[in-house]
Amino acid sequence: MTLKVGVIGTGMIGQDHIRRLTRVLAGVEIVGVSDLDRKRAAGAAPEGARVFDTPQSLIHSDAVQAVVICSWGPAHEEQLLECIAASKPTFCEKPMVTSEAAALRVIEAEVAGGRRLVQVGFMRRFDADYRRLKTVIDGGSLGAPLMFHSAHRNASVPPGLYTSEMPLNDTLVHDADISRWLLSDEIVGVEVRLPRRSRQGSDLRDPHFVLLHMAHGAIVDVEISVNIGYGYDIRGEVSCEQGVAALPNRPATVVSDVNGVRQSIPADWRERFIEAYDQEFREWIAAASAGTATGPTAWDGYAATLTADAALRAVASGGYERIEMIDKPGFYDTPQALAAE
Amino acid sequence: MTLKVGVIGTGMIGQDHIRRLTRVLAGVEIVGVSDLDRKRAAGAAPEGARVFDTPQSLIHSDAVQAVVICSWGPAHEEQLLECIAASKPTFCEKPMVTSEAAALRVIEAEVAGGRRLVQVGFMRRFDADYRRLKTVIDGGSLGAPLMFHSAHRNASVPPGLYTSEMPLNDTLVHDADISRWLLSDEIVGVEVRLPRRSRQGSDLRDPHFVLLHMAHGAIVDVEISVNIGYGYDIRGEVSCEQGVAALPNRPATVVSDVNGVRQSIPADWRERFIEAYDQEFREWIAAASAGTATGPTAWDGYAATLTADAALRAVASGGYERIEMIDKPGFYDTPQALAAE
Amino acid sequence: MTLKVGVIGTGMIGQDHIRRLTRVLAGVEIVGVSDLDRKRAAGAAPEGARVFDTPQSLIHSDAVQAVVICSWGPAHEEQLLECIAASKPTFCEKPMVTSEAAALRVIEAEVAGGRRLVQVGFMRRFDADYRRLKTVIDGGSLGAPLMFHSAHRNASVPPGLYTSEMPLNDTLVHDADISRWLLSDEIVGVEVRLPRRSRQGSDLRDPHFVLLHMAHGAIVDVEISVNIGYGYDIRGEVSCEQGVAALPNRPATVVSDVNGVRQSIPADWRERFIEAYDQEFREWIAAASAGTATGPTAWDGYAATLTADAALRAVASGGYERIEMIDKPGFYDTPQALAAE
Amino acid sequence: MTLKVGVIGTGMIGQDHIRRLTRVLAGVEIVGVSDLDRKRAAGAAPEGARVFDTPQSLIHSDAVQAVVICSWGPAHEEQLLECIAASKPTFCEKPMVTSEAAALRVIEAEVAGGRRLVQVGFMRRFDADYRRLKTVIDGGSLGAPLMFHSAHRNASVPPGLYTSEMPLNDTLVHDADISRWLLSDEIVGVEVRLPRRSRQGSDLRDPHFVLLHMAHGAIVDVEISVNIGYGYDIRGEVSCEQGVAALPNRPATVVSDVNGVRQSIPADWRERFIEAYDQEFREWIAAASAGTATGPTAWDGYAATLTADAALRAVASGGYERIEMIDKPGFYDTPQALAAE
Repeated sequence: MTLKVGVIGTGMIGQDHIRRLTRVLAGVEIVGVSDLDRKRAAGAAPEGARVFDTPQSLIHSDAVQAVVICSWGPAHEEQLLECIAASKPTFCEKPMVTSEAAALRVIEAEVAGGRRLVQVGFMRRFDADYRRLKTVIDGGSLGAPLMFHSAHRNASVPPGLYTSEMPLNDTLVHDADISRWLLSDEIVGVEVRLPRRSRQGSDLRDPHFVLLHMAHGAIVDVEISVNIGYGYDIRGEVSCEQGVAALPNRPATVVSDVNGVRQSIPADWRERFIEAYDQEFREWIAAASAGTATGPTAWDGYAATLTADAALRAVASGGYERIEMIDKPGFYDTPQALAAE
Repeated sequence: MTLKVGVIGTGMIGQDHIRRLTRVLAGVEIVGVSDLDRKRAAGAAPEGARVFDTPQSLIHSDAVQAVVICSWGPAHEEQLLECIAASKPTFCEKPMVTSEAAALRVIEAEVAGGRRLVQVGFMRRFDADYRRLKTVIDGGSLGAPLMFHSAHRNASVPPGLYTSEMPLNDTLVHDADISRWLLSDEIVGVEVRLPRRSRQGSDLRDPHFVLLHMAHGAIVDVEISVNIGYGYDIRGEVSCEQGVAALPNRPATVVSDVNGVRQSIPADWRERFIEAYDQEFREWIAAASAGTATGPTAWDGYAATLTADAALRAVASGGYERIEMIDKPGFYDTPQALAAE
Repeated sequence: MTLKVGVIGTGMIGQDHIRRLTRVLAGVEIVGVSDLDRKRAAGAAPEGARVFDTPQSLIHSDAVQAVVICSWGPAHEEQLLECIAASKPTFCEKPMVTSEAAALRVIEAEVAGGRRLVQVGFMRRFDADYRRLKTVIDGGSLGAPLMFHSAHRNASVPPGLYTSEMPLNDTLVHDADISRWLLSDEIVGVEVRLPRRSRQGSDLRDPHFVLLHMAHGAIVDVEISVNIGYGYDIRGEVSCEQGVAALPNRPATVVSDVNGVRQSIPADWRERFIEAYDQEFREWIAAASAGTATGPTAWDGYAATLTADAALRAVASGGYERIEMIDKPGFYDTPQALAAE
Repeated sequence: MTLKVGVIGTGMIGQDHIRRLTRVLAGVEIVGVSDLDRKRAAGAAPEGARVFDTPQSLIHSDAVQAVVICSWGPAHEEQLLECIAASKPTFCEKPMVTSEAAALRVIEAEVAGGRRLVQVGFMRRFDADYRRLKTVIDGGSLGAPLMFHSAHRNASVPPGLYTSEMPLNDTLVHDADISRWLLSDEIVGVEVRLPRRSRQGSDLRDPHFVLLHMAHGAIVDVEISVNIGYGYDIRGEVSCEQGVAALPNRPATVVSDVNGVRQSIPADWRERFIEAYDQEFREWIAAASAGTATGPTAWDGYAATLTADAALRAVASGGYERIEMIDKPGFYDTPQALAAE
């Protein structure tokens, strides 16, 4: 009953997933890896795993039952389409793809195949704090959600490497996805306001203040600060008709000393979401072992792409940028797809 | 050294201030009251206080050294101008006046008189929690403030009596004033977004999501919910370049029982701001005894009027409504005016 | 209706009460002061107040309606007996007296006079946090209180001046009094355990861990640390049959920065209990104006003396030291005495 | 590299560990089970696992590399001695054994074997909150620990089945073990005080208030309440020379509603310590795969037995009950034994 997995891409995130799949999680075995840099692939391959020359040969190998894609974004579309063609359950790191057209091609192929195969790496949905928050909201005791306040704060980003598009392309997409999931709704419009610029990131555009307009009328505001220095601080508060529900402080020793009564804050996303990543793969292994996928779908990847694109347009226009999605294939509403949530 | 005060208007708020000035605070004595309803005035007058026939006679009485105005808004302008003409320190409940033109006339008269006399009733500036927050921001250890998240939640408002303009005319003005004060800045533009409507207040427009754009670039977002049911919950968090500072929970016993680990929330603004009201008058008594005023000025009253007007325009237009103020009279920057803060 | 007060003792605490009675509180006027150091008395006397040569002349002056005793402990007995003889309401700083016999003489005199006149300075009973805690306990929703965990932490005490008896004589008495009040019960036995000694206070005996056994069986544990460095931290948690209720953190800005998510802690008792002192005198003024007293009684002062004595014996014996009180005069159960609580 | 494990005892806790070892954790396979109730064993055995007739045959089977003992306490000694004789790494649920003499026989056998093999099931040492707390204490920034306040509250215990000895035999041992571990110290004396009895558990002796005296002088107080109704609430606060460190609230959504601002409390130990149990076995698997054990040792099991015995004596005597341990075999100080902590 062990799931035999091939991993494409053995960079930082690929190596971390290899560690997770070999040392932390049960019911899974890595049987193959591939990377453009074959030497890096060989170094990352666990004992007994084969190093494939190409992603294609890995995907189509009979030894590989399921695939984890950790290559760079522009390569995802082709690899996903191959995986779908081979009917192999696939975990794909975000971004799923890098254009709306590519997202639609992936959706079309998956729908045509008749079985859900693609899981996209939005790990927040597997975080226990967000799950408890969703349970409270869905429970209905607070009434309908009307507003969601989301704060996404990074201690720092690498100067030079991190560009002014990335807060919207790489950071906002997490808040957008979790908003859709928490509120069980779609985003129909995006506005971006640029507050006074922080001097922490020299000439980087930071922070961003984003408004997401949801189909049923809820408004989401997102603070994105990427150089705030003090830690990686993810906040979320849902304001409902009859009450408010919020993410808690992360568990940390309560110290009373010369700095006051205090609790430490996670240093980065690895510390904050380490259990969420484990849980994400735990559920993927279970689903992939059953020949399918769970959690965030190709539809969610499509929505993320549209939101990031609209946010970038909104920076340029200064106005409200509308999002228009195709009709949602019934395929993505099946109990199968939603089961694990 | 006891300050002899006359109170104009003996409705609910007037009676509460009379209680405060007679039973709670030192150094003050109420020597006169007036009200359109002379019988109500007589009932509210403390022992030994004279009931005046008109606000004018109270203001000009030699027995009255300082005036507290608690009449209804449209009467304020005339009464303030009389007080200024009589050179008497005056505490005026909000709204200071009900139009931009009226605000400018009060400013002009006060500036012409050459001495600050008017204090407007924005009590949040006297709240210990807001003061500590401002101390942290002004201390500079967190860098410049870039965003301020303000939530203003009322358990309920009286159906029928409370109209859809009031969240902006009567509620928002507190968040606007405290934003200007916390950030030491002026508001230059207002946007209003209307989230999904709460079913708690039937056809009242509620909640509101407001953006205030500050002159130096900071962005303030204000959630106004007036029928949220669970209590009166005032939240504020300032996001700076290198950290974040927020209002604390109100002090309340931490109970662990079948409802979890919990703390109660104030029922209404009286419970939440009772000490702030006391402190507001404590400082006014000291200033008025010295022949002047402290805290929020006529300029602040003018700014509040402009903000409420712009917010109402923004609801109608759906867009960004610009605020243009006259040049600030140097008068309002004097150390005298700022001393008590 | 202004209460005319004489103050005996114009040291640090006396001066602070003079400030409070002249500048903060309504309905009171200081008409006389006295001090062994007549020059200090003259310096502390507010404008218009007479400097008396002796406590006796102050107490018996027709100009003085009520007395505040801030002299040193050994002088209290005589002064209290004079005040009672003169039928003047009296606020007496702690310790009420310094021996069991003296306490009994004060009680006997007050009971003989037939009217409650003495209020002892246990200010915690006037603190809003403790009052809310008592309201929760007395409300009964958590069942009977079974244990009370009390922590009494001082940042530091003056080396040399502060002796090893003082944690029990001067510090423990506050926890003992608040335990009796919160639990509506008497202390019947005391044990003291000495944990590993802190190196912060060189050879001072610190910390102390004290057990108070209550008549109805509840057990109170008190941690007394007097050199803990980080601040003045007063904690209290009542463990009941069906839940737990605790004092909250003090209100303070929640700062998220490089030190984590944190709130500051009061520096000392002045900061922590400043409002409690004000409230204590506010209620005393009301009671004294009606010719009586409120809050902590001579009986409470007697109980405090017995507890400190028993605690000191317990350090010496290492065992359980029993407290035996005389039968409580019904006098101290009258609604008059309890009214203000 | 998969560890082949046999499980003795397939009751509630045994079944839960079988679930954990088959579905949650990597690197482990259950190859055999045994139970007095052979039918229950067969029902609990995972696919492919053999059902052994006796614990002995399981322990000595060549197919079994390591053993998990979940049988009832009185059977542990014999099974542990067999495991040690067979040189097989063994995880033993608490109580390790039920008498001091038995504990010494296990220690003697393990020491004679020259290799650490036994790990005792004190799961708190693997809980992330306790580990962070220990990191803070060991870090030394707060100075030496002087007191540890531990609260151990159960919502309820089964009436009839749960006897008055169990709070000390089964509950206190967790607080005792975690105290020794947090403070890196041994317990040298125990006192028990019985507060007013809770009416929640009819005639059960509850709560208990226990003092543990540590060899270096720190004092631990433990509140044990087993019928407190509101949840499973584990609290711990270490008071040091220069500050205090405490366990945080458990992560849970912060809800603001008609019950106040609140966070839920775990219902029971399964919810509270589920991750700790997983981590406990994760580390055991790693150690057992290397032929040894980690975490709590037979020495710790011996200390727990002595503490429970002393606590029961203390209830009877009302006094201080001394604990005398044999000299600690150097064996239990080896880096091997401490490595995983």
